[in-house]
Amino acid sequence: MARSPIIAVIGGQRPPPEDLPLAEEVGRRIAASGAVLVCGGLEGVMEAACRGAKSAGGLTIGILPGGDKAAANPYVDVPVVTALGTARNVIVVRTADAIIAVDGAFGTLSEIAHALDQGKRVVALRSWDLTKVGVPADRILTAKTAEEAVRLALAEASRPQP
Amino acid sequence: MARSPIIAVIGGQRPPPEDLPLAEEVGRRIAASGAVLVCGGLEGVMEAACRGAKSAGGLTIGILPGGDKAAANPYVDVPVVTALGTARNVIVVRTADAIIAVDGAFGTLSEIAHALDQGKRVVALRSWDLTKVGVPADRILTAKTAEEAVRLALAEASRPQP
Amino acid sequence: MARSPIIAVIGGQRPPPEDLPLAEEVGRRIAASGAVLVCGGLEGVMEAACRGAKSAGGLTIGILPGGDKAAANPYVDVPVVTALGTARNVIVVRTADAIIAVDGAFGTLSEIAHALDQGKRVVALRSWDLTKVGVPADRILTAKTAEEAVRLALAEASRPQP
Amino acid sequence: MARSPIIAVIGGQRPPPEDLPLAEEVGRRIAASGAVLVCGGLEGVMEAACRGAKSAGGLTIGILPGGDKAAANPYVDVPVVTALGTARNVIVVRTADAIIAVDGAFGTLSEIAHALDQGKRVVALRSWDLTKVGVPADRILTAKTAEEAVRLALAEASRPQP
Repeated sequence: MARSPIIAVIGGQRPPPEDLPLAEEVGRRIAASGAVLVCGGLEGVMEAACRGAKSAGGLTIGILPGGDKAAANPYVDVPVVTALGTARNVIVVRTADAIIAVDGAFGTLSEIAHALDQGKRVVALRSWDLTKVGVPADRILTAKTAEEAVRLALAEASRPQP
Repeated sequence: MARSPIIAVIGGQRPPPEDLPLAEEVGRRIAASGAVLVCGGLEGVMEAACRGAKSAGGLTIGILPGGDKAAANPYVDVPVVTALGTARNVIVVRTADAIIAVDGAFGTLSEIAHALDQGKRVVALRSWDLTKVGVPADRILTAKTAEEAVRLALAEASRPQP
Repeated sequence: MARSPIIAVIGGQRPPPEDLPLAEEVGRRIAASGAVLVCGGLEGVMEAACRGAKSAGGLTIGILPGGDKAAANPYVDVPVVTALGTARNVIVVRTADAIIAVDGAFGTLSEIAHALDQGKRVVALRSWDLTKVGVPADRILTAKTAEEAVRLALAEASRPQP
Repeated sequence: MARSPIIAVIGGQRPPPEDLPLAEEVGRRIAASGAVLVCGGLEGVMEAACRGAKSAGGLTIGILPGGDKAAANPYVDVPVVTALGTARNVIVVRTADAIIAVDGAFGTLSEIAHALDQGKRVVALRSWDLTKVGVPADRILTAKTAEEAVRLALAEASRPQP
């Protein structure tokens, strides 16, 4: 059986308010494409993306850092309870066939770094621009809109994985 | 939104052949009840349970020990890639609202122990009988059939979690 | 350079009081043999064993489940801070060249199971007797005294690892 | 008992050759100060730092990503075997009271990000300069020499931890 692609949306818990509609649109477009959304399961960008995915009838997986399922945002269908703290960041990016970063603080930066370390590319939408510190431009794919971000991510998910 | 209960099926990669139809029936009944199946994502009991769940149109989550998604059995809808080795056993049981052990070797024993340590009960179907080493009989619920195992697990999943 | 053997002492946080002197003697004998003591870093059996090891001038490593170094017992020289919850149990047994279980509840049971799953033997001193549930007697080495437990563990540590 | 400070040295497995003497000097100075060295346990910057620490009689802890103790470089006194893959990066930085990055690729970048996410500062010696992407200059302390790096790290280790 062919599996649906899995797209991660990573990003901050407290983003600038104007980034939330962007994250929601990203989630909606991921679900509309038939892909599964994976994220860290909490609030902010994660919740907005899950809300968007559910509005389009998608499936959402939240990989939680804590031990309590109740911490998942209400739009997570399947909370994966790790109790691993931020070590769960590694799982989010390993699970994803492609990764979209929206906004994001240091936790998101760690996820981008793990993704690069795993040989993956990251689509960045108003997020960390690591090309300024020497990361090759073919590893950080800068998107200007949610539509472009999801299009790049779907193309990435269809490539053979590293 | 109310989430579907999540039932883990844990068990060996190389069980006695007669346990595979049992695991498959467990998976089918989990899916038929509307619950999500979570497991370790590999072969043996895990694969049989996933095959059963898919035959009833269910959703299957496989929490993999390695870093390669291709190791998931073909009936896993969403492979969660941990690369944590057997530390992923802890995640399988934390994610579950109820746990059914079918057969099982030392890895399964570790999962039962983690479940007990997390305050959970385990439904045992031809699996480790830890009441012989002093585990209270209300923590290891012995089932004789797949039907009984799933019935006990669904009841357990509807109790308030520890 | 030849490394010192590393012996894990696993056991409960709230053991029967009479087991604490036993755990302390185990720790003292480990240190006296020149081996490094590794444990989960908390109180009870772990603290007694570390206290014993320090009384003999040994080195103690505590692999903590939480994110706060201050949770280590005062006899831990090097607190390894995992914030992985009980997934750190796997690290304790992987790090050990040999393992001694003193008393112990479900967390200890999970460590014994992980050790067996990793192909290791476990020395049991007033701990879980898994031979009653079918674990071969050459995998669970029952000791009657602290002296015997440490002697068995040192022999085990000098065998080629699985 | 007062514990010795623990200083992490993070950095690449294949650094430019001229960075190895720098890493070795960092290790030597850490040990000479009485601090414990923690690292990822492998080759490159990690091995050079451990070699330096051992030349000054220090204690070295290597937190390994794999399941095989034999992968530790020969200057690691205590190999902590995680089998967690790169999720062990989180443990390296959590365990440290202060962190020195020497050179470093994406794995090191992930460790710097986790450190920042945990509220810690990082001393950077010919490493990632994240001030170019907006990280405040009081979070990334740039050092020009091994002496300066270790001096800054020791000062950091003596501050109350976040």
